[in-house]
Amino acid sequence: MIAARMHGYKQPLVLEEVDVPDIAADEVLVKVAATGMCRTDWQLLDGYFKAYKLPDFPLTPGHEIAGTVDRIGSLVPGSAGLAEGDLVAVVGGWGDGSCRQCHEGNTHICSNGKWPGFGPYGGYSEYVPVPYSYLIPIEKKYNLTAEEIAPLTDAGLTPYRGIKKLRDAGALGPDRVLAVFGVGGLGTYAVQYAKILGSDATVVAFARNDEKLAIAKEYGADETINVKGKSLDDIRKELVQKTRRREIDAVIDCAGAEEMIQTGFGLLSTEGHYSSVGLVGDRINIPLFPFVAREFTYHGSFWGNYNDLKEVVALAEQGKIRHTVKKIKLEEVNENLELLRDGDIIGRAVIVF
Amino acid sequence: MIAARMHGYKQPLVLEEVDVPDIAADEVLVKVAATGMCRTDWQLLDGYFKAYKLPDFPLTPGHEIAGTVDRIGSLVPGSAGLAEGDLVAVVGGWGDGSCRQCHEGNTHICSNGKWPGFGPYGGYSEYVPVPYSYLIPIEKKYNLTAEEIAPLTDAGLTPYRGIKKLRDAGALGPDRVLAVFGVGGLGTYAVQYAKILGSDATVVAFARNDEKLAIAKEYGADETINVKGKSLDDIRKELVQKTRRREIDAVIDCAGAEEMIQTGFGLLSTEGHYSSVGLVGDRINIPLFPFVAREFTYHGSFWGNYNDLKEVVALAEQGKIRHTVKKIKLEEVNENLELLRDGDIIGRAVIVF
Amino acid sequence: MIAARMHGYKQPLVLEEVDVPDIAADEVLVKVAATGMCRTDWQLLDGYFKAYKLPDFPLTPGHEIAGTVDRIGSLVPGSAGLAEGDLVAVVGGWGDGSCRQCHEGNTHICSNGKWPGFGPYGGYSEYVPVPYSYLIPIEKKYNLTAEEIAPLTDAGLTPYRGIKKLRDAGALGPDRVLAVFGVGGLGTYAVQYAKILGSDATVVAFARNDEKLAIAKEYGADETINVKGKSLDDIRKELVQKTRRREIDAVIDCAGAEEMIQTGFGLLSTEGHYSSVGLVGDRINIPLFPFVAREFTYHGSFWGNYNDLKEVVALAEQGKIRHTVKKIKLEEVNENLELLRDGDIIGRAVIVF
Amino acid sequence: MIAARMHGYKQPLVLEEVDVPDIAADEVLVKVAATGMCRTDWQLLDGYFKAYKLPDFPLTPGHEIAGTVDRIGSLVPGSAGLAEGDLVAVVGGWGDGSCRQCHEGNTHICSNGKWPGFGPYGGYSEYVPVPYSYLIPIEKKYNLTAEEIAPLTDAGLTPYRGIKKLRDAGALGPDRVLAVFGVGGLGTYAVQYAKILGSDATVVAFARNDEKLAIAKEYGADETINVKGKSLDDIRKELVQKTRRREIDAVIDCAGAEEMIQTGFGLLSTEGHYSSVGLVGDRINIPLFPFVAREFTYHGSFWGNYNDLKEVVALAEQGKIRHTVKKIKLEEVNENLELLRDGDIIGRAVIVF
Repeated sequence: MIAARMHGYKQPLVLEEVDVPDIAADEVLVKVAATGMCRTDWQLLDGYFKAYKLPDFPLTPGHEIAGTVDRIGSLVPGSAGLAEGDLVAVVGGWGDGSCRQCHEGNTHICSNGKWPGFGPYGGYSEYVPVPYSYLIPIEKKYNLTAEEIAPLTDAGLTPYRGIKKLRDAGALGPDRVLAVFGVGGLGTYAVQYAKILGSDATVVAFARNDEKLAIAKEYGADETINVKGKSLDDIRKELVQKTRRREIDAVIDCAGAEEMIQTGFGLLSTEGHYSSVGLVGDRINIPLFPFVAREFTYHGSFWGNYNDLKEVVALAEQGKIRHTVKKIKLEEVNENLELLRDGDIIGRAVIVF
Repeated sequence: MIAARMHGYKQPLVLEEVDVPDIAADEVLVKVAATGMCRTDWQLLDGYFKAYKLPDFPLTPGHEIAGTVDRIGSLVPGSAGLAEGDLVAVVGGWGDGSCRQCHEGNTHICSNGKWPGFGPYGGYSEYVPVPYSYLIPIEKKYNLTAEEIAPLTDAGLTPYRGIKKLRDAGALGPDRVLAVFGVGGLGTYAVQYAKILGSDATVVAFARNDEKLAIAKEYGADETINVKGKSLDDIRKELVQKTRRREIDAVIDCAGAEEMIQTGFGLLSTEGHYSSVGLVGDRINIPLFPFVAREFTYHGSFWGNYNDLKEVVALAEQGKIRHTVKKIKLEEVNENLELLRDGDIIGRAVIVF
Repeated sequence: MIAARMHGYKQPLVLEEVDVPDIAADEVLVKVAATGMCRTDWQLLDGYFKAYKLPDFPLTPGHEIAGTVDRIGSLVPGSAGLAEGDLVAVVGGWGDGSCRQCHEGNTHICSNGKWPGFGPYGGYSEYVPVPYSYLIPIEKKYNLTAEEIAPLTDAGLTPYRGIKKLRDAGALGPDRVLAVFGVGGLGTYAVQYAKILGSDATVVAFARNDEKLAIAKEYGADETINVKGKSLDDIRKELVQKTRRREIDAVIDCAGAEEMIQTGFGLLSTEGHYSSVGLVGDRINIPLFPFVAREFTYHGSFWGNYNDLKEVVALAEQGKIRHTVKKIKLEEVNENLELLRDGDIIGRAVIVF
Repeated sequence: MIAARMHGYKQPLVLEEVDVPDIAADEVLVKVAATGMCRTDWQLLDGYFKAYKLPDFPLTPGHEIAGTVDRIGSLVPGSAGLAEGDLVAVVGGWGDGSCRQCHEGNTHICSNGKWPGFGPYGGYSEYVPVPYSYLIPIEKKYNLTAEEIAPLTDAGLTPYRGIKKLRDAGALGPDRVLAVFGVGGLGTYAVQYAKILGSDATVVAFARNDEKLAIAKEYGADETINVKGKSLDDIRKELVQKTRRREIDAVIDCAGAEEMIQTGFGLLSTEGHYSSVGLVGDRINIPLFPFVAREFTYHGSFWGNYNDLKEVVALAEQGKIRHTVKKIKLEEVNENLELLRDGDIIGRAVIVF
């Protein structure tokens, strides 16, 4: 099979012919149909995760995978509901099955976890072996395509979990303002989920690019604020003008820039909740006194688990999710990684096989 | 002033001239503009609450009150934001200010609480004295009328709190079915809140009357099931046909009939949540084994507190709540109490002054 | 191997020689060292579960199993931390791995679940095959014996989960009264967990037997009330005398008798929480009005999941759990089932191999 | 009456004769019997709160107040249960009664709130006017003294609320490690609450002073670690040695030093919870990636509300709280503020009148 593999940091991926992987008795061989390209893929190449132990090179990137069932291991039970040819979404965080997180279903934060796309196998190739319990079958009757499903497994999943944390913390409701920070790959989903999970909260998208903010508006944001070059006071004035509120009650941060985190906490209301999913920056640097005295809560939220993805897929099946998908070929992967780096892709680039 | 007062059980109310009430220094005199008629008013007259200690006769019913600020006590602080002539909604459950419930804002379930409409003063009269902290000012610019506000203080509040309990328990989401039982005074609001708070749960209204179910559908229910004369198996078949699910994940019960509670638990899924707000019956009679083995959770939910009503008012201000209001005069109160008894009012009867 | 098997309802178990079971590649063969005898075993024999589909006879009862690792399947990963000879506790509720409950770790309430002791294999025999992810290794250095571990997997687990639900609902704390109903197999653990999880709540044990209440006191109950032959008013008077409170804030019901459930809700405070784990009766029959108006919450709680048992084992390892264990031989199983029926066993009967 | 008042920043307080304050109709005049001295008092003097609007000078510090009821306003209801001469604890955060926080009982974080000790009246004087709903009567029969009660209203309250947030978030239990950072005025209470609310979590106190750590141990900490001059790796090694765990599951931070916050997040386990109550530093400066990828939750927690203090008082009444109280006279207040600044007081200095 063809795979685009990484042989070192800051080098282009190499397209090469490799063996189709074997599967264990409890695994399924998935024939990849579509793989979303995530900014994390570029970060992997760039060395962002160097400090964390990864398998040896070569690595095959690609963790947003949709495909079809090609071969089923002998121990896969019938209750899994899988048959050859079925379209499936791949849940990307695979746990060791022994820790507390695994036993509460949060396999994606297992300390001994594995992820396709961060080891020998990934979605930048034609086949991937997947333990059966990480596959979600997509019902045929909804006519969803693999390229619609693939980006849901991360870009369309991560903000969903992040906003659920805000909802479950009681931070959302009719008289609240929910801010979406960043309207890139994750943020375009976030504004939609903000409306679905928000219990009628007013949704305000914050970003530095009017074109992206226009998409946010089209996808359901009630208001938008372009923060480029604006001080906290400027932003607050615009917030008051657009929502008649001086503060925001909750933030889903799909960006993660250090300065935006400061802006977010600067605008947050008493008992406000902030949920970080974006990783553009790598520093939280905010004052302690208001954090304590106003009883803020700050939630780290990472990717999503099986049930989260199942809920996102249910939304897609009901036609509740809009995408901006740019289909590309595996051969175009290197140039698109550069576009990702520069933030120059509107919506999601998806490799289609 | 004119008041319609209750001098004994199972007797018509007497319309009579009485003194305008005095106010204490921390109270506001509210000139009643509209009072919703609640089935509880009829139950009060019928003796449903005989066992619970009530003040002596005569009582003035009416606990769904909207009016204008007539006079302000000397100790009412400026932060209350009240001025003469302001339209206000009256929060109906007044606590003693000393118990744990009061100190968590749940004054409506204070064990030593008082309620307008269950003592000497109530909305079936022209003026009511109200402690200032139970008034919510309605902003003029939204052009809401008193008769739109009045029923929100109970009929439009009670199912809101009940559904919030389901939401906060994590029972709602894209792949869940939320049933609304009963589509009377409370249920017509419940179907709307189910869509707003449901995080895209499929909303199915259950009732015994096709006309009411048609309203449920018009107000947003995804599906409706007429349960009249049907067995549990019949209902389940219809559920499968309409939602492709054999079970429901959550119930907001606006009725409370013993048999419907049994039906509800008979249909409930593992980890299902049931929230009771309706009081048509007075018995919970269900099997223990599935309750335990399937880990059901049963929530009693009563009326609502200040913050709940504030959220409901915010929805109304944004035009998110539809009503079916039947305006009547105070002189017509006795005949409308009879209609209430028989369940023959579509939507809410509101006395307009 | 020797097994005590059930060939029909209301018949004594038959001790017979049967084949040692095979294991699948992801299973471990456990050599049973000790099996707790549960009242459910007698209910199984008596036909309580007839309505629920069970495998065909013969069945081997016994779901409270501790033993040693005898043989390890080829697919069991090293991260499971299992080696031949290790002492293990068996988590008893095995899910299908596909449903929402399984994916949140609640395999014990999987709708397609299986349980040792309710099918061909169970702890009333010398060997049981167990999927590896349902085994919890017991560290040697704590010197725990199999007969101490076995009853923790159900009797010592079920009330733990039930009380955790009360704690997580915010029902426990320094100024609350937590009642433990029933001081049999489950209740003797419940009083201990009530002190550990109760955040200093006053723990009051309720039962009909002074001998059992004496054990409750010895195991940590702050107060005890013998309810035999007493009216609700009598009980309330005794409660006032012993705790200076007229109401209880939370109940963990290890019995489940219809009348005690009525007593419990009769004593429950506003916003009170009731958690049912006991199944002696099979009917919840209580009035609706106080349930709604006082905002009670009723939790069904069943057995426990992997993480729950892990926490219970951690308590045992730290020497925080006291037992009353009666060791018996497999040959004595039938006579002990009769004692179970009559409630005549103090503590837990454990079959030791 | 005598008052020790603040006429400017970084100046000694002036002891002077001033008028006994008047009370409004809903207030109670409290004759101060004991006032705890808080590090915040010194910070107030030093200018830490300069940026936040405070009333004009002179200010009377002192927000940890216990005293007796001297005079009762005419509108104070009987349900408040107050009589002249009663010993009372003063809840220190007084809300405006109109905002969402006030209506959920969190008056201490009301954006328009007032606090005794940060305005004209405070506990560094003989009388304080207090709105009746902020008084908790102390039952005589427990023989608690004012000097035991006073420090509970802040030092003994703040860590209680902070640990409750950890408990309610599900972060505590038998197999968890709960770290207490800082063993000063707040931390000596924190170690005790950690044992009471911790559901048997292993409690490890971290501080820079062996004498204080010895008190932590005496008050119930399972282990202690002196972090002075140690690297994160050193601390981790000591943690492993003492608890056999490489990570901590939860932190109650009673200090708030920037470096300790970094240490805390460096040691935190996946899904770990961190609760900040201490304000020694004023910066949160930690890396974003582990915060997101390991799904940390960071809780700001401030002081406590009425119900929190009620629970703390219940613990004190049951003899569950140990103090180290140093009684001083009002004349000694300036020298003791200097000792506070230098962290040289073991336990709590309390002004006794």
